Amino acid sequence: MTRGPVAQALVRHVGPDGSRSAPDDLVVEEPLEIRLDGHTVATTMRTPGHDFELATGFCLADGLLAGAAVQAVRYCDGPCGPGDTTYNTVDVQTVDVRTGGRAPVPSPRLGVVSSSCGACGSTAIDELCLRLAPLAALGEVDPVVVAAVVAAAADAAPVFARTGAVHAAAAFRLATGELEVVREDIGRHNAVDKVNGRFLLDGRLPASGLGLYVSGRASFELVQKAWAGGFRLLVAVSGPSALAVRTARAGGLALVGFARGASMNVYSPAPL
Amino acid sequence: MTRGPVAQALVRHVGPDGSRSAPDDLVVEEPLEIRLDGHTVATTMRTPGHDFELATGFCLADGLLAGAAVQAVRYCDGPCGPGDTTYNTVDVQTVDVRTGGRAPVPSPRLGVVSSSCGACGSTAIDELCLRLAPLAALGEVDPVVVAAVVAAAADAAPVFARTGAVHAAAAFRLATGELEVVREDIGRHNAVDKVNGRFLLDGRLPASGLGLYVSGRASFELVQKAWAGGFRLLVAVSGPSALAVRTARAGGLALVGFARGASMNVYSPAPL
Repeated sequence: MTRGPVAQALVRHVGPDGSRSAPDDLVVEEPLEIRLDGHTVATTMRTPGHDFELATGFCLADGLLAGAAVQAVRYCDGPCGPGDTTYNTVDVQTVDVRTGGRAPVPSPRLGVVSSSCGACGSTAIDELCLRLAPLAALGEVDPVVVAAVVAAAADAAPVFARTGAVHAAAAFRLATGELEVVREDIGRHNAVDKVNGRFLLDGRLPASGLGLYVSGRASFELVQKAWAGGFRLLVAVSGPSALAVRTARAGGLALVGFARGASMNVYSPAPL
Repeated sequence: MTRGPVAQALVRHVGPDGSRSAPDDLVVEEPLEIRLDGHTVATTMRTPGHDFELATGFCLADGLLAGAAVQAVRYCDGPCGPGDTTYNTVDVQTVDVRTGGRAPVPSPRLGVVSSSCGACGSTAIDELCLRLAPLAALGEVDPVVVAAVVAAAADAAPVFARTGAVHAAAAFRLATGELEVVREDIGRHNAVDKVNGRFLLDGRLPASGLGLYVSGRASFELVQKAWAGGFRLLVAVSGPSALAVRTARAGGLALVGFARGASMNVYSPAPL
């Protein structure tokens, strides 16, 4: 039994005409411990559902799967023994691509970039350039496709419709804007990891014929995840950070922000 | 020289009537490595500014300052030696409250809850109840005060006005709604840490006469941070998670979500 993404609680609604109590839909948030070959690599607060995708996509974007192939993903047994599980711990099990044996053990991570007194945005971009290949340039961004994606994604977010408190990520075909995979989560990063994980588990990465949509802002980490998945266009409903723009330009990832109807900003590639 | 919160980039605006290129304001995002007595405890992507507050507030909310008093906060020297710094590494230096010597070294953290195969939302709440005292109940939430806070906070967010891509947190007086401290950051968590850090550095915690406003959703971690600061009311413009509601009720923190004009939902205390 896995938990669903929505729970109910009794809530008091206050308005100009007084107040009343009624049950309300709330998005579920639970910790997920992600393990890679038995070693804890992160604990993230997430909305339950598609946990195997989340764990796999997280490991991919963090560069933890280099030289390794995913062999299995499973829930860990709980503290009371085999067969008991909280469904809040997932182990991604890999094999070394060359030897067929266990892949090298990753070192634990503390945050998004390696720790050194000198870390900065440029360091972070340099590290990505070292481990990720540049993307094939998209050419011109088609505003009609972008508008279609934003409209379709707004209609494909049932948890948001019920709770108003989750973000969505969606993979779409670059040529038509048709949505292929949509995931919702209390964390934007998690929603993107779930999309990446789905494509990785299906053997469909790099996603070179696809773009990625996110319902919020575009941070450095979201650009990193889109690039790691091989998406060639990232569309954000809200704005990007300066570092996200620099990173997208460095990777050859097309980046659109404030995508609202026929209006949008193209941040990457840089205007001539 | 510290960097400001806004940078410029050349961007192509696309609209129904064609496109044009122009410089645009973007929120700055840079990694900040947080050290406690020389030991790295986290690296977070943040908007530069108020970094000492951010580092201090982060350590507070994570329970890393138990039994310790903050003696100094400083930027670390960079890789090229003394006097050189990227302004992206901050060390919080503490003393043991009882002995006056160095405080105990914290263990590195991997995520928001301790790692055990059995972690779940209830575990996370139990851990907070062990280390944080219950808050004094607020009594009735005053909708007029809440509406005043939301209106004032919207007018006190200059980085959002320029970039549209940051969140804000603000401390306000419970009696009047008057804002005391407002911080903006690309991360909601960071904005709240900066507010907590300001009050801690000023010796004004617990903030028992104050409420905390956040411009987005209320997750478990935001409730944790509000509780750790001793705020008695958390007002969120968007919705809370189910775990955030359970945590607020466990701590005695009043929690208001979807605060928009005269309309709002009171999630904690639970309706009778």
